[in-house]
Amino acid sequence: MSNTITYKLLDMKTQDNQDGKGQSRRNFIKQSGTVGAGMMLMGSVPLFANSKNEEEKEIIDMTKNIKTKGYAAKDESGKLSPWEFERRPVGDDDILIDIKFASICHSDIHQEKGHWGKQQYPQVPGHEIVGVVAAVGKNVTKFKVGDRAGVGCMVDSCMECDSCTHGEEHFCERGQTLFTYGNKTEAEPTGISQGGYSDKIVVRDHFAVHIPEHISFQEAAPLLCAGITTYSPLMDAQLKVGEKVGVAGIGGLGHMAVKLAVSKGAEVYAFTTSADKVEDIKSWGVKEVIVVDEAFKNMQAYSKTLDYMICTIPYQFNVTPYVMCLKPGGTFTFVGMPEGSEITINNLMLAFARVNFNASLIGGIPETQEVVHYCADNGVKPSIEIIDANQINDAWDKVVNKEARYRYVIDASTF
Amino acid sequence: MSNTITYKLLDMKTQDNQDGKGQSRRNFIKQSGTVGAGMMLMGSVPLFANSKNEEEKEIIDMTKNIKTKGYAAKDESGKLSPWEFERRPVGDDDILIDIKFASICHSDIHQEKGHWGKQQYPQVPGHEIVGVVAAVGKNVTKFKVGDRAGVGCMVDSCMECDSCTHGEEHFCERGQTLFTYGNKTEAEPTGISQGGYSDKIVVRDHFAVHIPEHISFQEAAPLLCAGITTYSPLMDAQLKVGEKVGVAGIGGLGHMAVKLAVSKGAEVYAFTTSADKVEDIKSWGVKEVIVVDEAFKNMQAYSKTLDYMICTIPYQFNVTPYVMCLKPGGTFTFVGMPEGSEITINNLMLAFARVNFNASLIGGIPETQEVVHYCADNGVKPSIEIIDANQINDAWDKVVNKEARYRYVIDASTF
Repeated sequence: MSNTITYKLLDMKTQDNQDGKGQSRRNFIKQSGTVGAGMMLMGSVPLFANSKNEEEKEIIDMTKNIKTKGYAAKDESGKLSPWEFERRPVGDDDILIDIKFASICHSDIHQEKGHWGKQQYPQVPGHEIVGVVAAVGKNVTKFKVGDRAGVGCMVDSCMECDSCTHGEEHFCERGQTLFTYGNKTEAEPTGISQGGYSDKIVVRDHFAVHIPEHISFQEAAPLLCAGITTYSPLMDAQLKVGEKVGVAGIGGLGHMAVKLAVSKGAEVYAFTTSADKVEDIKSWGVKEVIVVDEAFKNMQAYSKTLDYMICTIPYQFNVTPYVMCLKPGGTFTFVGMPEGSEITINNLMLAFARVNFNASLIGGIPETQEVVHYCADNGVKPSIEIIDANQINDAWDKVVNKEARYRYVIDASTF
Repeated sequence: MSNTITYKLLDMKTQDNQDGKGQSRRNFIKQSGTVGAGMMLMGSVPLFANSKNEEEKEIIDMTKNIKTKGYAAKDESGKLSPWEFERRPVGDDDILIDIKFASICHSDIHQEKGHWGKQQYPQVPGHEIVGVVAAVGKNVTKFKVGDRAGVGCMVDSCMECDSCTHGEEHFCERGQTLFTYGNKTEAEPTGISQGGYSDKIVVRDHFAVHIPEHISFQEAAPLLCAGITTYSPLMDAQLKVGEKVGVAGIGGLGHMAVKLAVSKGAEVYAFTTSADKVEDIKSWGVKEVIVVDEAFKNMQAYSKTLDYMICTIPYQFNVTPYVMCLKPGGTFTFVGMPEGSEITINNLMLAFARVNFNASLIGGIPETQEVVHYCADNGVKPSIEIIDANQINDAWDKVVNKEARYRYVIDASTF
């Protein structure tokens, strides 16, 4: 990465009406004070005027690490606490994003608690990130300072293999997909990628997407994981208008799956274990809400009725009653990743049901951009609750206890 | 079922050149002696001349149970012993088959040992059955006495539901699929269906298929399960000529999958743990044989290379290295049914591999007829070893120990 060029910071006044929070330039300057301090220590640095607004200039030293404030897990306890750390300098192909909002995904909790394997701590979770571009590297043409940008589940890959050059960077054939937090990388001062529960992020330009003007930052954030993770398999399923789509598990991902499937014209059947979600779910335009009982008795009426089912349940459960709701030849897609990532399925049941079973991860960058545009254009908005950083631990408990309605979005100005 | 009409037995001399064993009429009469005895006890009975050969007549009393000799499991020990029992009378829609050969499927062993659930004993296994039609009920038009016929994995269903009327009787929507042995049925004197390790079987005509003249009985028998069970998913996969098909587990089912896929024009990769099968497998026209080592190291070279994989391994194993051989978007079909019928798969692996996973049971009656014709017409023949009834227990041990090469076929004249 280049370390010879510096760039102008955005005049945040131009963004006041876009982030939905009316955040003032003063606030921004305060947040980016550590960057300014780095610049001042450096003395004279070259400038690169990348913004049309020449009125105010703030300089980022592209040779220096980016001081960042966030909330990190320090161990497997699942409790986060404030942490100040450094990100890598803004390289030639990088952008620096001043984070406005980051939302909470159940995956954050699984990973930080070590459910999917040992972790290196401190680790900052978060892969639903939106904000304003505050600096761009010299090779960057995709963004300019001041653009609204989002970052999802990955921040780098080889960018040369067939998968990477065909918009499937999450399946980098060289195994170089760098997920947004907790992945080892020599580029970062902490030795691992650090996520979005923080006030800034440096990311390779390709791995950020544009956030259009007609969706608020806080409503865009959940699209970067919950949106793309449900949109991608729904699109792969090549559903026709009027086909019957089941959504199992109506949490952060599930509620997006419902809204996306309804928006696309499917007849949606929502399966939840939370009776108090019924009215919410009905308001999103579903055909039916099924409150699943422990013996799965009320699911029998749906035997062989659905064309497709997407399952977002993020823990071990009895898959069979759900799979049995599909018509023969239907497809069951698993996007929830339980502890250990393992599920046990009854082979004989699968044979009798004649169901295709697959699992889907996230989605590539082009498709992530697509879902953001789709939701902005069609008014598909996640149901969110905005919280401050000091409410994160409480919010995590609520997510685990199925009390989230339906996505917690952290106001990054509170880090 | 009717109990008022009797029918003529076949003059077996017309079959001498078809069953490959040159079985004499004397032998047949001896075998069917119990039937004749039943007739004689009855005195005068109406005749229905259903054979063109009027030369000799033997009468079956359609009101009486059919005395049958076979080998049965008496408990979960997995040891069979001779057993004489009765089958139901030949009903209006039934045919009586004088069994010539019945072959041994690993499923027989699993079921009789109780691996898939508690069983009622004595139970006669066997669902790869071929022989000569010895009597037909008054409604039967599909077969006439003397026809060569085969019976596979099922012997009845509702015949009215959508699945049954569309050739998918194994998926009877009323749950009335009656599998060939061990299924409860009031129609049978023993209270359960009894399979093909025996000298006769009574079966509803629809559930028998024609065995054409240009395939021997003994080579046709394994097609009734091993053939259809691998043919059906291979056809469902809609493979194109030249596509790369993996076959995992080269036993009774696997060796048929290899031969069928090669015959259909696929480039076949056979995965086996038995190094001494390599030369056999190569002789069947595969592209490569991979002798899988315990650490699956030599499978890494095949990562993401296959379009499709059919897995016939009938026990619990590590699925991941096999699934990883598939290209993204490929399909992995499980036809082996392990103990408990359960398999554990890594959800995350499945998501990364982007593989569709399904399981396939058997195939419907029309498709069973199709595979028999296909194999007869295209010279696709199982590799078999003919045994006498008293060798069954030894053969079962060899199947479990992977020593079968590749299908044991029991000469039914030795029951």
